[in-house]
Amino acid sequence: MEHQTHLGDGGAGDGTPGTVRPGGRTAKVRAAVLAATEDALADAGFHALNMDHIAVSAGVGKTTVYRRWGSPVGLVADLLRDMADRSLPASDTGSLAGDLRANAALVRHTLTDPRMGAVFRAVIAAAACDEECAAALHGFYEARLEEWAPVVERAAARGEVPAATDGLELLRAVSAPLYYRFMVTREPLAAEDAERAVAAALAAAGAGVFTRR
Amino acid sequence: MEHQTHLGDGGAGDGTPGTVRPGGRTAKVRAAVLAATEDALADAGFHALNMDHIAVSAGVGKTTVYRRWGSPVGLVADLLRDMADRSLPASDTGSLAGDLRANAALVRHTLTDPRMGAVFRAVIAAAACDEECAAALHGFYEARLEEWAPVVERAAARGEVPAATDGLELLRAVSAPLYYRFMVTREPLAAEDAERAVAAALAAAGAGVFTRR
Repeated sequence: MEHQTHLGDGGAGDGTPGTVRPGGRTAKVRAAVLAATEDALADAGFHALNMDHIAVSAGVGKTTVYRRWGSPVGLVADLLRDMADRSLPASDTGSLAGDLRANAALVRHTLTDPRMGAVFRAVIAAAACDEECAAALHGFYEARLEEWAPVVERAAARGEVPAATDGLELLRAVSAPLYYRFMVTREPLAAEDAERAVAAALAAAGAGVFTRR
Repeated sequence: MEHQTHLGDGGAGDGTPGTVRPGGRTAKVRAAVLAATEDALADAGFHALNMDHIAVSAGVGKTTVYRRWGSPVGLVADLLRDMADRSLPASDTGSLAGDLRANAALVRHTLTDPRMGAVFRAVIAAAACDEECAAALHGFYEARLEEWAPVVERAAARGEVPAATDGLELLRAVSAPLYYRFMVTREPLAAEDAERAVAAALAAAGAGVFTRR
């Protein structure tokens, strides 16, 4: 999020460390509040999210937190926007199999990380309880799938998959088995599960299952 | 659940309507309490589940509900056991594609049903917040996958998939894209999504992706 702070505006800051540029304070407040929100979600989940505690943890005035985010739902929705902004750029390993393996490994790494796994469980559960959270969660995955879609376009240009392959469907096919184990059947998520998800998606793509009609 | 009441014990009840057999009252209390739990989950989710309200809705004494189920988590865990018992038997259409289409259609039908979709969202969210719910959810899907595994064994015997195909992996591959849209990316779940999930799983199985090593 520090990254974002520095890119937050096109102003004429001189870049000296410690310089406060226009928008800098706002961005810092947001970074602190969203980090505190992430901590709270990882520790105790959505239903324990408390605006006053977030303000104290972030070292920010309660009035600011209430005025800017309004409610725990507002915090989760903004966290999901920030997570989409911070998500790593897509791989470009030179082959579709390599790129999809990198993608599956990243998903598995995130979901099996104690902190980020707990955050993802919390935001998915929050989305089950609240439509604004659901819309924000949808937006997060939409952004992430769009970010990775060029991987499939490049593969189609190289002739690795049929030209009319729907990249989003192929990418959903890689992620779905991992999230299914993580969130639904509650089964372990091993490296071989990520490999199998990639192999299955590639076989289906090769058979034309994801070709636009 | 009425079905279960009649099959609940192997005793010598004469089957006359209205006859109270050993276990009959206990089974009826359970049926009423679990139906009330399902209603409450569909209406307001796990965090609003209230033992006193469940007792009133079910027409059962509060003491009975507290003694037998202990907590909202106990209600959700028992509901998941009951849902596993009630789940429909696997199809046997004569072809793997037919059986998997029936399975995918059943999953889609359940998840897009306003009441049952809300119940599934609630129990999956509950599992994200509580380990006992997570274990019960895991047990529900384990039972359901086991119930459908013979579909793949029969297909292997007919030579439709490689002999060493792991039926559970193939079945997970059919369900995963549907749950991913339903619970994670919050995208619509159309008939073509169910068809695509089946086609992708069949292509991967044919390519040997789900073969045990």
